[in-house]
Amino acid sequence: MTRTVISSASKDIIIGFDQPFVMIGERINPTGRKMLAREMKEGNYSRVEKDALAQIAAGAQMLDVNAGIPLADEPKILADVVQLVQSITDVPLAIDSSIVEALEAGLSVYKGKALVNSTTAEEEVMERVLPLVKKYGAAVVAISNDETGISEDPDERYEIAKLIVERAADHGIKREDVIVDPLVMPIGAVTSAGRDVFHLLRRLRGELKVNTTCGASNIGFGLPNRHAINNAFLPMVAAAGMTSAILNPLHPGLVPAVKAADVLNGVDPNCSNWIKAFREPAGNGEQSGRGGRRRGRRRG
Amino acid sequence: MTRTVISSASKDIIIGFDQPFVMIGERINPTGRKMLAREMKEGNYSRVEKDALAQIAAGAQMLDVNAGIPLADEPKILADVVQLVQSITDVPLAIDSSIVEALEAGLSVYKGKALVNSTTAEEEVMERVLPLVKKYGAAVVAISNDETGISEDPDERYEIAKLIVERAADHGIKREDVIVDPLVMPIGAVTSAGRDVFHLLRRLRGELKVNTTCGASNIGFGLPNRHAINNAFLPMVAAAGMTSAILNPLHPGLVPAVKAADVLNGVDPNCSNWIKAFREPAGNGEQSGRGGRRRGRRRG
Repeated sequence: MTRTVISSASKDIIIGFDQPFVMIGERINPTGRKMLAREMKEGNYSRVEKDALAQIAAGAQMLDVNAGIPLADEPKILADVVQLVQSITDVPLAIDSSIVEALEAGLSVYKGKALVNSTTAEEEVMERVLPLVKKYGAAVVAISNDETGISEDPDERYEIAKLIVERAADHGIKREDVIVDPLVMPIGAVTSAGRDVFHLLRRLRGELKVNTTCGASNIGFGLPNRHAINNAFLPMVAAAGMTSAILNPLHPGLVPAVKAADVLNGVDPNCSNWIKAFREPAGNGEQSGRGGRRRGRRRG
Repeated sequence: MTRTVISSASKDIIIGFDQPFVMIGERINPTGRKMLAREMKEGNYSRVEKDALAQIAAGAQMLDVNAGIPLADEPKILADVVQLVQSITDVPLAIDSSIVEALEAGLSVYKGKALVNSTTAEEEVMERVLPLVKKYGAAVVAISNDETGISEDPDERYEIAKLIVERAADHGIKREDVIVDPLVMPIGAVTSAGRDVFHLLRRLRGELKVNTTCGASNIGFGLPNRHAINNAFLPMVAAAGMTSAILNPLHPGLVPAVKAADVLNGVDPNCSNWIKAFREPAGNGEQSGRGGRRRGRRRG
């Protein structure tokens, strides 16, 4: 029963096979958000604050923070954002960068046990990121691609994930501190993208026995009504064994979909999280009033 | 690759592993609908007509028809309703009754190849229903319980389903004409209900190689916001291998959830059904306008 503990100064979050699915808010990320990128570059973090609080209010148990802005001082900005977000919230963070110096800057100011997002199986990346993960006692997201890119064969992606887990062990990082991202292709481009991920998730959980995550927002890329694709995708990956995802909890219907999947996967005992979230008509559920009125009817 | 063909006078619907999930509209059923029950008993079928058309407009590929009204002439009413619905629509029907005489009355006037809903593994039921299914060249829903009731052990339910498939073969009914209902318990009462069904569905598909269906509306019975439970349940059972369900296509979000599951399961090639349904802002998708505007953005 694999469990990954990620923590802030005062709070542990457990990602695990027997735990509710962990939603990692993706919004603090300037990629494709011009206004946020400009503000962050100028040291104006008011929108970061708002995004942090709104995502937690919506149900995120963790937040991903990314400061990838072209021609900006990414290490400094990422460290600033980590400190700011930790000063106003108590949720654990995923420190997200493709620049190792930025990861280290973020880790050096982080209070608690962070999730480093990410390493791949590329030699140069692993050999720079994994020592950092070990040094700071963090956990790490392992993305299942290598120098040759992303394999279309999910069983090859499994072997690449296994390689990262083994290399992490060489660096003294335990298996439960490696969270594998099986890589989700846009379904509009790759018809088998869903089935490939379901298959890979079952292997990662059943054989490699690791926790898993993914960037959940791109599965419907290019399709109309893409959020409805997402809202179905999350329960499906959760049913196949995924234990966390980086996603936008503000999208309508997404948090209820994930919480419903918890109920259906038997990781919300007595449905207590569900009932707490949706019992009151004024609670955080969009359909809670309607749900409440229908309570007890056998056919709607 | 199991395929079950159900037909009306002019239209075939295929339920199958490589096919889009088949939604069977549940609304033409007086259980728990007092006004409908009274009207049907009086021979007033105006609401039946409306329910038939509305469900098809919402996306149902088949309709279930049930006339279970206490102290009414169920065989006559069911035959009336079958004829009426076949006169105004071209979708194939599931003829639904626990009274064998009513099933026969419905079958005797049905044009095409019906789905008989249902038999259990109870000796008396099987030995009355299966000859009828054979006589009329129909397919049949096999509910996985017997004289002892519903087993809590999904592997026992598997054995019971297998027994019905074998008995059907004795009556000359092919395996592909038996659609197994694994029986879905309310998740609020049975914490393992979801996992049990996912497990059972994988066995029914992988080992017994049969199509499957269920009454999908009761999984959230007794819980607040139960429709959100349903909307997550359908993609999860589809991912586990279920190929059809009896459901209410008028519930908000349910049809998009099922169609999204088709996309993600790779049974909507080129996403063509999805794009057809949601491309236009004025199409049948609730969120199609919003989806359209976001098209092409990588982060929402």
